[in-house]
Amino acid sequence: MNQLNQQWRLVARPDGELAAEHFTIVSAPMPQPGAGEVLVRTIYLLIPPAMRMWMNERDSYMPAQTLGEVMSGITLGVVERSNHPGFVPGMYVNGMGGCQEWFVATGEQLMPISAQAGVPLAAYRSVLDVQGLTAYCGLTEICRPVAGQTLVVTAAAGSVGSLVCQIGKKLGLKVVGIAGGPQKCAWLERECGIDAVIDYKAGEVGQRLDALCPQGIDLVFENVGGEIFDLILDRINDHARIALCGLISSYNGGVTQKTSSLMQLVNKTATMEGFLVRDYFGRYAEVIQQLQTWVLDGSLKCQIEILDGLDSIVDAMARVFHGKNQGIQLVRLSPEAGLTLLHNET
Amino acid sequence: MNQLNQQWRLVARPDGELAAEHFTIVSAPMPQPGAGEVLVRTIYLLIPPAMRMWMNERDSYMPAQTLGEVMSGITLGVVERSNHPGFVPGMYVNGMGGCQEWFVATGEQLMPISAQAGVPLAAYRSVLDVQGLTAYCGLTEICRPVAGQTLVVTAAAGSVGSLVCQIGKKLGLKVVGIAGGPQKCAWLERECGIDAVIDYKAGEVGQRLDALCPQGIDLVFENVGGEIFDLILDRINDHARIALCGLISSYNGGVTQKTSSLMQLVNKTATMEGFLVRDYFGRYAEVIQQLQTWVLDGSLKCQIEILDGLDSIVDAMARVFHGKNQGIQLVRLSPEAGLTLLHNET
Repeated sequence: MNQLNQQWRLVARPDGELAAEHFTIVSAPMPQPGAGEVLVRTIYLLIPPAMRMWMNERDSYMPAQTLGEVMSGITLGVVERSNHPGFVPGMYVNGMGGCQEWFVATGEQLMPISAQAGVPLAAYRSVLDVQGLTAYCGLTEICRPVAGQTLVVTAAAGSVGSLVCQIGKKLGLKVVGIAGGPQKCAWLERECGIDAVIDYKAGEVGQRLDALCPQGIDLVFENVGGEIFDLILDRINDHARIALCGLISSYNGGVTQKTSSLMQLVNKTATMEGFLVRDYFGRYAEVIQQLQTWVLDGSLKCQIEILDGLDSIVDAMARVFHGKNQGIQLVRLSPEAGLTLLHNET
Repeated sequence: MNQLNQQWRLVARPDGELAAEHFTIVSAPMPQPGAGEVLVRTIYLLIPPAMRMWMNERDSYMPAQTLGEVMSGITLGVVERSNHPGFVPGMYVNGMGGCQEWFVATGEQLMPISAQAGVPLAAYRSVLDVQGLTAYCGLTEICRPVAGQTLVVTAAAGSVGSLVCQIGKKLGLKVVGIAGGPQKCAWLERECGIDAVIDYKAGEVGQRLDALCPQGIDLVFENVGGEIFDLILDRINDHARIALCGLISSYNGGVTQKTSSLMQLVNKTATMEGFLVRDYFGRYAEVIQQLQTWVLDGSLKCQIEILDGLDSIVDAMARVFHGKNQGIQLVRLSPEAGLTLLHNET
């Protein structure tokens, strides 16, 4: 019986990409739940691009990660022991458990989930949680789409982007995605039913946008930033609405936008609005229910990529930043099935 | 009696600053008003920074200026002949008459003004027209200020910026302006009653913003773009609202923004919105009346700088781009007083 808790700790801030010298894996004692607390065994850890930004010295929407501490992380786990009446062993819970095998949390820090037959458990740590809520609320509340409008989505094969594309189609939009490589583009067009996908690795993104969006661009769901974002801004229509979900190209540093492209916001009286999913937690139950219905009826495709073990976090993040993941990148820390009851108290 | 019409025509597009080789001054025949038309003698020509952008190859919010044609220009003139029942000789009119001494317009293309005693006529081509409407509506409708918030204004001593600063004070905001040179800063602080002004030419804008905005920045009225705009974005508060009025630093080309600073829109769930004064023409009468009241009671200061003659357009624009004008830059093409009736027909 493993009585130790493996923890992934950031020990140096990356200047560029995350590498082996920036972290250490520590064997800590098992945490013990106090009064009203819950002990959770982590099954899945989500690897969103923003996790790289949390490692920077500067605060983002999260306080900067403290060096030497367990890295923040978004988790799906199972309750193994509980001193809280609302949680019983065997219950699956989402939360911010951090990059470690076990953690202790209060009830307020955990979101119970009831997995449905036909939906893989991993989906509750990906599509059917913050990523899905981000896609749905970002598109509906920030872009405010009207059927018939043209929507451009960057990182279109990514965890949030692929959902935005498909929800956009359900809302009657013309959806043009931008993704890297023929495999992702084929998946989006053939499986996800997107109108058209631009493979940015094939170049000529500006000309392809001109050809695919002859009426201009009304809505943008932006995940990346950099040169391609400039090309999109250069083609927006009057009163365009741009949802800034993230700017992954900036997390490793050094990327710029042309000020003249930003001037398009003036020329077109357009709006660019940043958002964070935490502002939409009030719609969680409603939105996740809707997304789950679509997953179950097969009309919302999702892909989940899984690597195993804390050791693989660095590889998982490299996959995200090199655009190798198609869909959502997870790291699995323990098996889905089987409770590991450590103690028999109460 | 001058029977010729001097016209300033763009003959080559500047790549960088406007210079002598980009324009020519042509003596054209006097235009003749047709049925329902009005002949106007231009008195003042407004030199806004955006005029430089209109010269670029790419369309902005205006179609790109056609080479060889009379340059577009915002004018105040006096009716000299009229075939329109709503306009009589001697009436002052605002409009888009272009960079020329005389022009013919339909009634719909002209906005009559009735100059008030105590207000210089030039003010009706500056504060009490599009510039004032831009300042008032941009601040109230895009920034949506709440008393007590901190507003940062760039190009704060400029034509629009100086009005935004003063209107901001009237609305109960803490106003921090950014301007170039001690003279402008002193004028804003002492005459216009702004809380504080940062002289960007003295450097250390980031530290000065930290010191002057210890509670962060809630509202931004942005006229410039570039490095200082990045420093402002790096200091915005949650739900900040950024009105993009213009990005003068981009009009000559080559300027960039840090994508990581744009990421602040996400981190702070902030909104950046471009706007054009033409969307607010419905509020023209109401807003200009309010501004005129403030000008008359001495509570809204404005400075007007005037150069004379079409020849001086290039110098006037250089003054604007080098930040030499304090307040609004005009070019005068003919005297304020005295009608020059060319003909005695009806």
